[in-house]
Amino acid sequence: MKAMRETFDHELDQLHVRFAEMGMLVSEAIFRAVKAFIDHDKKLANQVIERDLAINQCETDLEKMTLELIALYQPVTSDLREVITILKASSDIERIGDHAVSLSRATIKMKGTYRIAEIEVEIAKMGHHAYQMFEAVLDAYVKRNLQQALEIAQQDLFLDHELAKIRQRSVEIMQVDQQSVVSGSYYTLVATYLERIGDYVTNLCEWIVFLKKGEIVELNPGRNDDLQE
Amino acid sequence: MKAMRETFDHELDQLHVRFAEMGMLVSEAIFRAVKAFIDHDKKLANQVIERDLAINQCETDLEKMTLELIALYQPVTSDLREVITILKASSDIERIGDHAVSLSRATIKMKGTYRIAEIEVEIAKMGHHAYQMFEAVLDAYVKRNLQQALEIAQQDLFLDHELAKIRQRSVEIMQVDQQSVVSGSYYTLVATYLERIGDYVTNLCEWIVFLKKGEIVELNPGRNDDLQE
Repeated sequence: MKAMRETFDHELDQLHVRFAEMGMLVSEAIFRAVKAFIDHDKKLANQVIERDLAINQCETDLEKMTLELIALYQPVTSDLREVITILKASSDIERIGDHAVSLSRATIKMKGTYRIAEIEVEIAKMGHHAYQMFEAVLDAYVKRNLQQALEIAQQDLFLDHELAKIRQRSVEIMQVDQQSVVSGSYYTLVATYLERIGDYVTNLCEWIVFLKKGEIVELNPGRNDDLQE
Repeated sequence: MKAMRETFDHELDQLHVRFAEMGMLVSEAIFRAVKAFIDHDKKLANQVIERDLAINQCETDLEKMTLELIALYQPVTSDLREVITILKASSDIERIGDHAVSLSRATIKMKGTYRIAEIEVEIAKMGHHAYQMFEAVLDAYVKRNLQQALEIAQQDLFLDHELAKIRQRSVEIMQVDQQSVVSGSYYTLVATYLERIGDYVTNLCEWIVFLKKGEIVELNPGRNDDLQE
C-alpha cells in the first residue's frame, strides 16, 4: 500500500512538472507576443505561432497522463482534486496560448499599416498587465496561495476597463482619420485577445480555490462585459 | 455489485440529462442571440444575457456531480471516459454561451448606429451556420456518431472563411464611409464571436472521438487562423 502511494505521488509529481513546463511555455508566448506587437517585430510574432504546437502537445500529453493516472490509481479527495484540476486548468492555459497566437497573427497582418501611438501605449499596458497576471497565477498555483488567487482575479477588472477605453478611442480616431481604419479595427481585436487572457487567468484562480477548499466558485461573476462602456 | 452498477448507471443518466439540458439552453442562446442581432432586437438580446446565469449554474452543477461520481464509484475505462467527457465538454459549452452573451451585448450597443446591410447578411449566414453546427454536434454526441463528428468539424472552415471576408469588407467600407466606423468595428468583433463558437464545436467533436475511440485527437489543426486573409 505504501509502495502504491509512493508510485502515485511520483506520477503526480510528473504531472506537475509537465504542467509547470506548459505554464512556462505559455508565459513565454504571452511575453513574446506582446513584445512583438510593441516592437512591430514580425519575426518574433512568427516564433510565437510556431511554438504553439509544443503548447498544444503539452495539453494532449497532460490529458493522457491524467486519464491514465485516474484509471490506474483511482484517487479520491485531495488527490482527485489535484488530478482533475490539472485536467481542467490545462485547457485554460492552452487557450491563453491560442490568444497569444491570435495577437501574433495581428502583429504580422498589421506590419506596414498606419499606426496610432497613443493606442499602442494602452495596448502595451494591457499586454504587460496580462503577462504579469499569468506569471502571478502560476506562482499562486505552485504555492497553493488562496489569498493571492483572489487578488489576481480582482486585477482582471483593469483589463475589462482598458478594453472599453481602447475600443472607444479607436472608434473616435477612425471617425476623423480615414487612414487609421485598418489599424483601428485591429486594435480592438488585439485588446479583446488580451482581455480574454484575463478571463482565463481568472478561471485558473478559481481552480486554486477548488484545490484549497474543494469548492467550485465563480470569481468576478458578470465579467465578460467586454463590450460595456 | 449489480446494485452498485445500477446506481452508477442511474447517476450517469442523471449527468447526461443535466448535460443535455445545458446543451438545449445554449442552443437556445445562440439561436436568440443571432435572431436578436439580425432583427436589431435589444429586448431579446437582454433575455440571452439574463439566461446565461442558468447556463453557468449548469456547468457548476455538472462539475460537482461529476466529481462526486468519480469519488464515489471510481469508474474505469469507458465509464470514466463518459464522466471525464462531461467534465471537459461542459466547459466548452459554457464558453459558447459566453459568446452568445458577447454577441447580445454587441447587439445592444449597436442599437441606433448606422448599419451596413451587405455585412449583416454575411453575419446572419455565419450565425445560422454556427447554430446548425452546434445543434448537429449535440445530436452526434447523443448518438455517439463518429462520422458525423468528423463532418461537423470540417464545417468550421466556413466560419473561418466568412470571418476573413467580413473583416476585409468592413475595413473597405469604413475607409470610404466615415459614418460606418462604429458599426464596422462591431461587425468584426461579432464575426470573431461566431468564429470562436465554431472552434468550441470542433472541441466537442474531439470529445466524441474520445468517447468512441479513447483517443485524444486534434481536428482541424492550425485552425484559429482568425486573422488570416
